[in-house]
Amino acid sequence: MPEIEAAEKNEIGSKERSIGKEIGDNQMQETMKEILMRVDHTLLRQTATWEEIRKICEEGIAFQTASVCIPPCYVKQAKEFVGERLPICTVIGFPNGNCTTAVKVFETEDAIRNGADEIDMVISIGHVKSGDFSMVEDEIRRVKKACGNHILKVIIETCLLTEEEKIRMCKVVTDSGADFIKTSTGFSAGGATREDIALFAAHVGPDVRIKAAGGIKSFADAEAFIRLGASRLGTSRLVELAKKETAGENGF
Amino acid sequence: MPEIEAAEKNEIGSKERSIGKEIGDNQMQETMKEILMRVDHTLLRQTATWEEIRKICEEGIAFQTASVCIPPCYVKQAKEFVGERLPICTVIGFPNGNCTTAVKVFETEDAIRNGADEIDMVISIGHVKSGDFSMVEDEIRRVKKACGNHILKVIIETCLLTEEEKIRMCKVVTDSGADFIKTSTGFSAGGATREDIALFAAHVGPDVRIKAAGGIKSFADAEAFIRLGASRLGTSRLVELAKKETAGENGF
Repeated sequence: MPEIEAAEKNEIGSKERSIGKEIGDNQMQETMKEILMRVDHTLLRQTATWEEIRKICEEGIAFQTASVCIPPCYVKQAKEFVGERLPICTVIGFPNGNCTTAVKVFETEDAIRNGADEIDMVISIGHVKSGDFSMVEDEIRRVKKACGNHILKVIIETCLLTEEEKIRMCKVVTDSGADFIKTSTGFSAGGATREDIALFAAHVGPDVRIKAAGGIKSFADAEAFIRLGASRLGTSRLVELAKKETAGENGF
Repeated sequence: MPEIEAAEKNEIGSKERSIGKEIGDNQMQETMKEILMRVDHTLLRQTATWEEIRKICEEGIAFQTASVCIPPCYVKQAKEFVGERLPICTVIGFPNGNCTTAVKVFETEDAIRNGADEIDMVISIGHVKSGDFSMVEDEIRRVKKACGNHILKVIIETCLLTEEEKIRMCKVVTDSGADFIKTSTGFSAGGATREDIALFAAHVGPDVRIKAAGGIKSFADAEAFIRLGASRLGTSRLVELAKKETAGENGF
């Protein structure tokens, strides 16, 4: 996925790129574009209809987001709709993470068969709370194996974990061979915080990238998360904001 | 499950059985016991550890609840622990309901292999919102087929549906051959209401029973739901209250 690698090579966050009234429209649009290249444009609400999912796909294509992140039941239809124009990301064991490993593996295989390019799984939080990290790691390994070459992001639901558990999970995710550690489902008590992204950046191995999800409200938020080490952002709001900025124009 | 049928034949709700200070301890304990026979003693919190699940199982056995309702990842351990002393209920496609039908079917088979006696599935709410009721019904039929003789309860998440959609779902659940219609997951905007139980009672077929879940806080609540037509109650609070009532005694 060259567009993702390109986005990740960019150093966003230098002062001259800050979004503000002092910079020109072109500059702002360039910054927005670079940020949107890191966005998994997300709609996981359980009431979402295919019409709403299709709209998210159209927006993802128009705004060149990293992917759309949608419920598993719409992956097949979405893949047929977007073809090769946009990667499809979906969620596994979502949002509570307390289904069995067998189900997470089956759900991953099913999603990939249906056309998913990327997989965001939720860990078994109860096993973290029991200190059974070997079981948590084994589960991630099995899901990663089911993913093959597809990207696996591991949602640890930071709002439910202690500092010590988060640090321990940075090691577990690194050792498991997963591609990303991700903060939040967006369906629990809280979303990504700057502190958590900084903590991830300090504790994951060099091959593990970071996804901030939940509560990202503005391009300034996005820049802050990226500066702290996030390579991906899970949100639907940034595309909404970009649409307002570019109203009446065709894309950028 | 003779204990469930026995409980359902009882007419709870007649005035002389009302819980209140005017009635004696024995009478109150009898009423509590009859209500607890209809309770799926529930712990679905995503942080729940095996120790907490084991405690729920012990309480379910001690207080003779209809079942324990626990996450799929603990069904196997729980079955080994309780044996034939207590039915195990678990949840499928929970709580958002937007995984694929293939995953719901696989998860049901997996749960039954692990020892689940009863299955509470969540419908695809997005398909209800698109008016695609035939897809919703087909999914329930497939999960029911995977259930075999095991009880299937269908969670329609009333707090997210309109009155019209709820009535329509009463028909869909009836036509699908499922055993129960259930109000709520306990993970969305609201739980069971008296109005919804009355509405279910007015619109489901004679073979469909009703489970009220979410927000049941007292034995008075429970009696009201039963009086309106609920055969089962999903809650953990009633056992907590019963424990306080019977503190120092062995069971009842």
